[in-house]
Amino acid sequence: MKTEKLPSAQTISRTPFPGSRKIYVQGALHNVQVPMREISLSATTDRFRNITEENRPVTVYDTSGPYTDPNVAINVRQGLPKLRNPWIEERGDTVRLNDISSAYGKSRLSNPALDYLRFEHSTSPRRAKDGANVSQMHYAKKGMITPEMEFIAVRENMRLEELYEKDNSLWQQHKGQNFGAHIYQGFITPEFVRSEIARGRAVLPNNINHPETEPMIIGRNFLVKINANIGNSAVTSSIEEEVEKMVWAIRWGADTVMDLSTGKNIHETREWIIRNSPVPIGTVPIYQALEKVNGKAEELTWELFKDTLIEQAEQGVDYFTIHAGVRLPYVPLTAKRTTGIVSRGGSIMAKWCLAHHQENFLYTHFEEICEIMKAYDVCFSLGDGLRPGSIADANDAAQFAELETLGELTQIAWKHDVQTMIEGPGHVPMHMIKENMDKQLRECGEAPFYTLGPLTTDIAPGYDHITSGIGAAMIGWFGTSMLCYVTPKEHLGLPNKKDVKDGVITYKIAAHAADLAKGHPGAQYRDNAMSKARFEFRWEDQFNLALDPDTAREYHDETLPAEGAKTAHFCSMCGPNFCSMKITQDVRQFAAEQGINPEEALDKGLHEKAKEFRQNNFELYS
Amino acid sequence: MKTEKLPSAQTISRTPFPGSRKIYVQGALHNVQVPMREISLSATTDRFRNITEENRPVTVYDTSGPYTDPNVAINVRQGLPKLRNPWIEERGDTVRLNDISSAYGKSRLSNPALDYLRFEHSTSPRRAKDGANVSQMHYAKKGMITPEMEFIAVRENMRLEELYEKDNSLWQQHKGQNFGAHIYQGFITPEFVRSEIARGRAVLPNNINHPETEPMIIGRNFLVKINANIGNSAVTSSIEEEVEKMVWAIRWGADTVMDLSTGKNIHETREWIIRNSPVPIGTVPIYQALEKVNGKAEELTWELFKDTLIEQAEQGVDYFTIHAGVRLPYVPLTAKRTTGIVSRGGSIMAKWCLAHHQENFLYTHFEEICEIMKAYDVCFSLGDGLRPGSIADANDAAQFAELETLGELTQIAWKHDVQTMIEGPGHVPMHMIKENMDKQLRECGEAPFYTLGPLTTDIAPGYDHITSGIGAAMIGWFGTSMLCYVTPKEHLGLPNKKDVKDGVITYKIAAHAADLAKGHPGAQYRDNAMSKARFEFRWEDQFNLALDPDTAREYHDETLPAEGAKTAHFCSMCGPNFCSMKITQDVRQFAAEQGINPEEALDKGLHEKAKEFRQNNFELYS
Repeated sequence: MKTEKLPSAQTISRTPFPGSRKIYVQGALHNVQVPMREISLSATTDRFRNITEENRPVTVYDTSGPYTDPNVAINVRQGLPKLRNPWIEERGDTVRLNDISSAYGKSRLSNPALDYLRFEHSTSPRRAKDGANVSQMHYAKKGMITPEMEFIAVRENMRLEELYEKDNSLWQQHKGQNFGAHIYQGFITPEFVRSEIARGRAVLPNNINHPETEPMIIGRNFLVKINANIGNSAVTSSIEEEVEKMVWAIRWGADTVMDLSTGKNIHETREWIIRNSPVPIGTVPIYQALEKVNGKAEELTWELFKDTLIEQAEQGVDYFTIHAGVRLPYVPLTAKRTTGIVSRGGSIMAKWCLAHHQENFLYTHFEEICEIMKAYDVCFSLGDGLRPGSIADANDAAQFAELETLGELTQIAWKHDVQTMIEGPGHVPMHMIKENMDKQLRECGEAPFYTLGPLTTDIAPGYDHITSGIGAAMIGWFGTSMLCYVTPKEHLGLPNKKDVKDGVITYKIAAHAADLAKGHPGAQYRDNAMSKARFEFRWEDQFNLALDPDTAREYHDETLPAEGAKTAHFCSMCGPNFCSMKITQDVRQFAAEQGINPEEALDKGLHEKAKEFRQNNFELYS
Repeated sequence: MKTEKLPSAQTISRTPFPGSRKIYVQGALHNVQVPMREISLSATTDRFRNITEENRPVTVYDTSGPYTDPNVAINVRQGLPKLRNPWIEERGDTVRLNDISSAYGKSRLSNPALDYLRFEHSTSPRRAKDGANVSQMHYAKKGMITPEMEFIAVRENMRLEELYEKDNSLWQQHKGQNFGAHIYQGFITPEFVRSEIARGRAVLPNNINHPETEPMIIGRNFLVKINANIGNSAVTSSIEEEVEKMVWAIRWGADTVMDLSTGKNIHETREWIIRNSPVPIGTVPIYQALEKVNGKAEELTWELFKDTLIEQAEQGVDYFTIHAGVRLPYVPLTAKRTTGIVSRGGSIMAKWCLAHHQENFLYTHFEEICEIMKAYDVCFSLGDGLRPGSIADANDAAQFAELETLGELTQIAWKHDVQTMIEGPGHVPMHMIKENMDKQLRECGEAPFYTLGPLTTDIAPGYDHITSGIGAAMIGWFGTSMLCYVTPKEHLGLPNKKDVKDGVITYKIAAHAADLAKGHPGAQYRDNAMSKARFEFRWEDQFNLALDPDTAREYHDETLPAEGAKTAHFCSMCGPNFCSMKITQDVRQFAAEQGINPEEALDKGLHEKAKEFRQNNFELYS
């Protein structure tokens, strides 16, 4: 029994990013300090004009939390500093409870056999004062701009505001196609954040019992976010591994993390993860509920589930996946499917419905769930329990019937000022993705869509981060707000650290490709900086600007390890004679040597001839 | 000098695929034997009804050639059997030359210092009889259905014709969106192949001096194909490695291979590759030409280039990348670009144009090039020398001006009955990909588009197989005929075997996702078979149906190595209690135990209730 490995300083990744420093940007309305990563760049040397020009540093969105700040002391047994406590207290609408409220939580706490693996420094939970609603949506509807909202405005702008210069070519970007999104042109304001949350078009998941979070937002009109799933299973893993997986996932860019543990000590594992997580944590409470009835779905009850919700809400879970849309009448619609029901939660509820021949208790008790959500500001992630698990089942009657119900439930949640997002598939071929996206926007009143992939083919197990990365990039472009990663182990096994990183990087690519396609303000800045560094052979800058600097450097050094190669005007791909970028620069030099500066050489020197050819309509064979 | 490592039986991958056998399907018109891979599946056991049902084997497209057929003896020093020789001879329009025609080829042949690395069993080359045109396009226009064309018809159908059963649910697939492609409904006929080649909408690259090829087709109305690039550079690699890279690339699914060698012994390396390659080989002749003038672009001449074309055509290169669209007047259009010219060939020609202040000699001598192409049936791959090398430069004036010229050149090539495809970018954000595709179709009269990616963001060096796999899947869906792979080493170094495999598998995914989205007949069959196996926990079948069976099995076994786990009704992802597929089956069993078969239970048992809910408009909260 006493085999559980606990986290320690040694097992947590803390290396700062190369060529980068952590900066904190101050807010104007509230005393918020927003962490970002500043990547410093080397100067550009113009070989023709013998001048060097500075390259301003690039500031990037940073989800890694205090772990990558060498100035912050981290003690995983203490947990992270409680950044949001003063903001929560200041609002004065919560009470600190003397004791936790859930029966199950109490029983775990009073069990001495668990002392050895219990997180020691948990504080007693907060709850809304009687009748109070502490959700950010409630504040937003009342016109309040909370510190959390301002934090987000500063964060989404990534200091581009300060760096903005009209004449800086790095600012040029393509006009995007956003399919009717209301992307704020210019820089995000706290008021815009408020209005989007009030409108229900964005969610700000942060439970009052998770004050360690650095606020972030999920909404169609903000940067596309990604989620990483972690969690042990009956078959494998430990608390130590799970906490490190969380730290590892946010290091590479996970905006939120879901703890999908279904194995031993779920309650304690979750506590360790939340206390050490600067990003919102999501869970699927039905998993733990099922453990409590030893896997017998038919023995689940509303009372047991309710106790589980309160247990987790008081630990600080920021969003709950609730499969309230898996309704009794929809189960028959899955009978002829190729892969039936592939959502764990969905299949559990379907089994319960059939066993009792009753309507899903999550649906019948939905308003009671809302009451719990708003007492802790837990955000709904309405689960797509009937999502397609194969290309064959994509966009079928079961999936869309459930989606319509999720739209109905969204209206109920909004009536209670409870923040709500909607989960999406699954397996969908490329040409059917937009139909799914458009239906979600229509049915759910633009509540944020949160999709798993979708996978665009079934035939590549071992590479489903890629089959799904394709669908994720597309659906992100079409309007999805958060992309749930898929790792190479999907359909095969539980992801290890390498799989987590591969999944996260793949999804950062998908999310960023979507931001570019939507024409999100400033999205192209980093691409432009990378391409400029590439054209100028600033190898170190290319590595440091990369989503994964370590791998970029490692691959380059694999064939050209010498330090000199870091300044070479070629790489091993083509060698010196065949480096097109080098030749292009030679072209310009060649011109320069003829006394004119390269651009004149190209512009003027050939301009006349160019005209002449155009006048001849480019005809040479006429 | 004598350090060159040569291929041997030991250095070539020959392991057959698990659970598979090589089959040869006989043609009806000509005596063609078309190789395919047949994957055998285990039976389905119905736990409820205690019956087992056979699962018919799945036949898949097989690019791996004789290497994966244990019954074929391979001797890399002899080269592959010359499958097409009788067909070529039968046409009687070629002559076997006594000696090779190119001056350079002769000089290499007569150099004893090269004996040790020379491929010994080269035969003297063929050429068209004076005035004859031996291109497949020429035959097609005359109404001939060649054995090559029939081979392709059989191959593209993947024996689905024989396996077709209306009532087989594996045949069900979604109606695709093909954006105006003329996809043949039903099964491909030899006459359809002919008509598409005659129309210029498809190419069949197979040089009469590369009779070892198993014919394949590249066209918008056929399965989307992929190309893998190999080749040494001044900095690295050997003949032995390059030949194995070719065999390795086709093993995983490369439909054609480009030899982009720019290092030592290019001529001899190419000979080894071609003689051992069952797939068409493409090259960029300007690379070798540049080597011949020691990397001094300005010293390139038409005569030297022409000799290089003949040298390579007589070795059997199946398609040439020719950068004839990089015209003098376009060079200025690249002056203000973020990354200038990023195509090696493009930058070489731009440099030549500037140095001589003359029009590109590939453009001015284009019709002479056509004369050479049709004498050996070499296919044009008109190079996009001005493709964008960064998101910033996507779809700009330089790129589109060149594309218009490539359209003009296509008409000239077609006038000579020379098969032609068009190369495309590059770096393009998602929302600009379709514009690029549509312009190519319009300007080039639907000549096959052959694109590199496109990469949808610049910021992920080390993962550009993924940034580009996203764009590749999309442009394949929109109408691109062949996708040139990008490996994880792009922008950083020369790919090793692992990179080649990662690139090929990623591109097989992109190509297949495109076939599904286009609604290509039978495309979904393998997905359906995979999903059925998945739902029925036939793990071995899942591995064997995967694009990469080895990795699928390895990932599964990483957490559950025991043989028993191969029949377990769960995997380590969720464990037994949480396997949704298991629960779904339990649901059906549960129903069955109540005396009714599961579908009735779901259909009938709940049907009335379902109706009732629908009548109430799903309202519970009204």
